[in-house]
Amino acid sequence: MITLKDAKRIIEAAEVKAAEIGQPMNIAVADAGGNLIAHARMDGAWIGSIDISIKKAYTSRAFDIATKDLATHSQSGGQFFGIHASNDGKIMIFAGGIPLKQDGKVVGAIGVSGGSGDQDHAVAEAGAAAL
Amino acid sequence: MITLKDAKRIIEAAEVKAAEIGQPMNIAVADAGGNLIAHARMDGAWIGSIDISIKKAYTSRAFDIATKDLATHSQSGGQFFGIHASNDGKIMIFAGGIPLKQDGKVVGAIGVSGGSGDQDHAVAEAGAAAL
Amino acid sequence: MITLKDAKRIIEAAEVKAAEIGQPMNIAVADAGGNLIAHARMDGAWIGSIDISIKKAYTSRAFDIATKDLATHSQSGGQFFGIHASNDGKIMIFAGGIPLKQDGKVVGAIGVSGGSGDQDHAVAEAGAAAL
Amino acid sequence: MITLKDAKRIIEAAEVKAAEIGQPMNIAVADAGGNLIAHARMDGAWIGSIDISIKKAYTSRAFDIATKDLATHSQSGGQFFGIHASNDGKIMIFAGGIPLKQDGKVVGAIGVSGGSGDQDHAVAEAGAAAL
Repeated sequence: MITLKDAKRIIEAAEVKAAEIGQPMNIAVADAGGNLIAHARMDGAWIGSIDISIKKAYTSRAFDIATKDLATHSQSGGQFFGIHASNDGKIMIFAGGIPLKQDGKVVGAIGVSGGSGDQDHAVAEAGAAAL
Repeated sequence: MITLKDAKRIIEAAEVKAAEIGQPMNIAVADAGGNLIAHARMDGAWIGSIDISIKKAYTSRAFDIATKDLATHSQSGGQFFGIHASNDGKIMIFAGGIPLKQDGKVVGAIGVSGGSGDQDHAVAEAGAAAL
Repeated sequence: MITLKDAKRIIEAAEVKAAEIGQPMNIAVADAGGNLIAHARMDGAWIGSIDISIKKAYTSRAFDIATKDLATHSQSGGQFFGIHASNDGKIMIFAGGIPLKQDGKVVGAIGVSGGSGDQDHAVAEAGAAAL
Repeated sequence: MITLKDAKRIIEAAEVKAAEIGQPMNIAVADAGGNLIAHARMDGAWIGSIDISIKKAYTSRAFDIATKDLATHSQSGGQFFGIHASNDGKIMIFAGGIPLKQDGKVVGAIGVSGGSGDQDHAVAEAGAAAL
């Protein structure tokens, strides 16, 4: 189980990485049910990314997969093309979401949005490492 | 007409197949109107697949077609590209939904989600065979 | 202005064509504001096509274009890719919708769904010709 | 900060350009929060473009980017493919939206819809230049 204290520590670690990269980000942490525990929008981060960060976290938990990996199957021609239309618009199929694990079990997820796909994923990894 | 008893038998047959494959699944059965009769989420199955299984069943009945076959026409460049935006987000255009027939007539549909497209379709077939 | 009497005549002409083709269809007629005047679901037509026929009519009037032509610009890589996400899910970007004209002015639209793209378009043309 | 007076001046400049091109347009101006300040539908402009113009303005501010540039990353295979499914259907990923800047800072955005992608973008630029 991820506590609010855990979530804040994860977000702070992600913020450090984002500052290092020099790109302000939206960072969200969800619990095992896919529900938001905490979110932070760094000063200057895109307002369109608030929603995306929260939904990347949801998506990563919804399918226990990094959204970066879900993306590879969800382009036109892929076996999951169209999955973005499911779950009432909560599915994000591009990089930045990562499941959070404890003892090999998924207990939640982090979602990051605010830069390129590679930047979002790197910041999410930094956050996940803090759990 | 598919009774609740039929639906439960279909779901149980699908569960057996999913267990055989070793991949927990969400399984849904809809009636001739596309409305849900019963659903089961096997332990450990993705929570994002609850919605998808129900909507694959709806889609299969909505167009009297396996969602696997609908997929072939719904990619970018295909004659039905954009169909996923219809019916208020209830259309799933990837494998796992199959119409249920009695005496050659569609009386409902099964929708399965929880693994790869091939796995979902195989489990749906096992369920459909139990009607 | 299209009256209800006009709309019924249009729908009946479309039904004749659909029967000729041997494919039951959903047929919808919208007014100059894109609002539905009348709809008919032929016996045996897909229930998923009810919504599509109404939205094809809306789309044709919304952009004064056949949805078949809108499709050519709305695939991945096209200049309008993503337009299906606008107008709260009412935009259909595949064949079957045609604007209805009087004295060269668009006064409404017809939308048809129930078969292949070519079939839908042919039935819509037959309906439009009855105005 | 963009005042209503500013927004009206921007819209009028855009209208002049649209008239020059000979294509009636929908033009929308949003504030720094992405919220609409003013909108104008030129006589004869597509009704489906009302919504699109408002959402192009929102999108440009949401990500501080011209929607034309966002488009290049949002096609199938691109790093942001699927972004159109975020923000509850408010994201438009085709040309016609431009951020509005004062002293190098984004203070709002203009969104234009009613013609080809190139036309929409040109009219948006003419509007933006009036700030």
